[in-house]
Amino acid sequence: MFHKISDEVLMHGTCYENLRVLCKTVGHRLSGTPEAAKAVIWGEQAMRAAGADSVWLQPVDVPLWVRGRESLYLKIGKKTKKVTALSLGNSEGTGGKALTAPIVMVHSFDEFNALPDDVVKDKIIFFNYRFRQDFVFTFEGYGDAVKYRWASPGIAAKKGAAGVIIRSMSTGKDDFPHTGGMHYPDSVKKIPEMALGNNTADMLEQACEKGKVTATMKSQCHMMPNMVRSYNVIGEIKGTEFPERIISVGGHLDSWDVGEGANDDGAGCVQSIEVIRTMKALGMKPKCTVRAVLFMNEENGLKGGEAYADSAKARHEHHALAIETDAGGFTPRGIGLVMNKYQKEQIQHYKYLFQPYGVYDFSQEDGGADIGPMRKKLDVPLAGLIPDSQRYFDVHHTNNDVFENVNHRELKLGAVALAQLIYLVSEHELL
Amino acid sequence: MFHKISDEVLMHGTCYENLRVLCKTVGHRLSGTPEAAKAVIWGEQAMRAAGADSVWLQPVDVPLWVRGRESLYLKIGKKTKKVTALSLGNSEGTGGKALTAPIVMVHSFDEFNALPDDVVKDKIIFFNYRFRQDFVFTFEGYGDAVKYRWASPGIAAKKGAAGVIIRSMSTGKDDFPHTGGMHYPDSVKKIPEMALGNNTADMLEQACEKGKVTATMKSQCHMMPNMVRSYNVIGEIKGTEFPERIISVGGHLDSWDVGEGANDDGAGCVQSIEVIRTMKALGMKPKCTVRAVLFMNEENGLKGGEAYADSAKARHEHHALAIETDAGGFTPRGIGLVMNKYQKEQIQHYKYLFQPYGVYDFSQEDGGADIGPMRKKLDVPLAGLIPDSQRYFDVHHTNNDVFENVNHRELKLGAVALAQLIYLVSEHELL
Repeated sequence: MFHKISDEVLMHGTCYENLRVLCKTVGHRLSGTPEAAKAVIWGEQAMRAAGADSVWLQPVDVPLWVRGRESLYLKIGKKTKKVTALSLGNSEGTGGKALTAPIVMVHSFDEFNALPDDVVKDKIIFFNYRFRQDFVFTFEGYGDAVKYRWASPGIAAKKGAAGVIIRSMSTGKDDFPHTGGMHYPDSVKKIPEMALGNNTADMLEQACEKGKVTATMKSQCHMMPNMVRSYNVIGEIKGTEFPERIISVGGHLDSWDVGEGANDDGAGCVQSIEVIRTMKALGMKPKCTVRAVLFMNEENGLKGGEAYADSAKARHEHHALAIETDAGGFTPRGIGLVMNKYQKEQIQHYKYLFQPYGVYDFSQEDGGADIGPMRKKLDVPLAGLIPDSQRYFDVHHTNNDVFENVNHRELKLGAVALAQLIYLVSEHELL
Repeated sequence: MFHKISDEVLMHGTCYENLRVLCKTVGHRLSGTPEAAKAVIWGEQAMRAAGADSVWLQPVDVPLWVRGRESLYLKIGKKTKKVTALSLGNSEGTGGKALTAPIVMVHSFDEFNALPDDVVKDKIIFFNYRFRQDFVFTFEGYGDAVKYRWASPGIAAKKGAAGVIIRSMSTGKDDFPHTGGMHYPDSVKKIPEMALGNNTADMLEQACEKGKVTATMKSQCHMMPNMVRSYNVIGEIKGTEFPERIISVGGHLDSWDVGEGANDDGAGCVQSIEVIRTMKALGMKPKCTVRAVLFMNEENGLKGGEAYADSAKARHEHHALAIETDAGGFTPRGIGLVMNKYQKEQIQHYKYLFQPYGVYDFSQEDGGADIGPMRKKLDVPLAGLIPDSQRYFDVHHTNNDVFENVNHRELKLGAVALAQLIYLVSEHELL
């Protein structure tokens, strides 16, 4: 059956075409926006087309962050230059007014903390921390660098800074700025934060080393005061022997408000739907109930993941395994496992079955953000698809995260691995 | 040292920039052309810049195939349409004249062989064999399909066909035709052969199923009567303890006359040069002699590989290992080994060292075309880098095999694996 799954997906899989439709007819789809609502309708239709026994929408109230217009000018010497920049997600802008201040460049929080307060006060701080390219697995580089996106405004505001510019969390040799989530600690001023692509960051670095640079930030971004009603999209195949045992596989339907959310995480959505389609196409009647879940609001709130876990708890559902695919539509290389040692051994025992499909690494402790609440609230074993990570942080959260940067065969092989894992756990009654 | 090699390449590697220069200032470089001569000069300079102790050119006489102008028109019903097509490498064209004939579509050699001679005579045969997408490792699909490119004209000409059109050896969901080598058996008429991209092949398939289609082929391609003097480019670091033991690593410098030969095989060339650069940058003084070799004429003659082996034999050189990288600049996944069981075990014993770099598969019997003669003539153990294969046959031998389709980190990780393998064999005195 492992090989039948592979043949079915590689030869007849619809996930790539589904991704094209999502990317090209909906496009990016930040939580709470009309595009996200359109994506919910798309998801419901795609689940039905895949042949799910039942499809439903699970209500989720989500925040709505609005970008609006934004610009960044750098004055270097006597020349003023407009540069490409993106406000970070959830950040507050300048209220549409020009915020002009000299730039102070630092390379780390340590360097920043060592600065006297008066050097920082009313300045725009440029956190010029480079994504470490030496990590082979790029998520380690991301984990290392992302604090500068997440926490810089809070740390800078405490010392009286007026704004923050960061070098993007990017492996790219290009000038795409990367947006992404940030947050303000309580009781500090909500100062604006913008990200630069690597090329502009390099240019600014050189300029700061040579002399004085002044920035003018202008942005309208803000968090709306009220939550917006949205939905997780769920499709299910009812189990024949143990319908009460549920195995979920999901990605997140929302994206940032740039690009097309192709790798992050349209890929995970269409792969999860492909699992349903493949089982139906092969006439499989799984012993356990299999669910594909398109989570809403992973990027800036995780409300969908919380709602799914809360609902499971309230209904006393028994979840044998929750799987997430949210690391890009690249060739799968492993499956991360977040579960106890005994459970891990049950899965790892079968890893030789996955090796012919290029999936060899079962040693990582990786699940996924959306399914995290299932572990926290219900102690559900988690698994996460681990694709090849080399290209992900070139495109992640950028205008370059588009359909064209997903390869049809790589995407499909991810769906193969997910369907194989579910088949194994369901039919061999693991976990 | 394994990790130092990785850090050095990922942080300071120049292979990606070298590839950019090769692709953008030389471009494609079919054997015997002025572009190939320019590539030799580029290679020599790049070897010197990498710090090789000595760099030399090894003379190779190569064939020169010239494409010239070409066109293909299809008359379907009353409409005539120009379609994108490429003559296959080494094929003879129509002498610039229009060759117009009805198309006979077949899906396999078996189907063709079952046709009566009079159905075939003076027709253009469309060999509509699909690349099998069900193979996980795409080189298996290529191996399965490539006979239709290589042998169709010979088989068709024997029964009196006037010309051949093939569906490209392509995994691509696009319309890029793929060129590549073909050959004529002795004593058959040299009829022209052209390849279609998948989209046009699909269209032609439907048209043939519905009714009569007539093709008009026009092409000037031909093999020149005389060989052209060209070169392999070789860079060497002399071994400190066992200078007479040689480890070679190479890719091929020539390409087909379309695209930029980025993945096939600019990637392998710059990775081989990167091995030299990395060893020098790290101050390594390898016990054995390490050579990077840019082979000429892999695509349509293999004269460079033959010349390298002939020279090694004539000079009684002792080659401990010859490594090839000619499967695209994608994330490395394994190292193929063509050697005896005892030798394999020596390498496989250390495979755990490669696993943190994503290189896990040491079970394949893969070397490479250029180093094949080293095995045949001198019984040298061979190794071949095995990158992820999913995207290769989307771009292979097409106008789409360009620099932009190579990722900087994936390319570099290939060079890491090669340098690590050489370090291991040289310093641990394996093989």
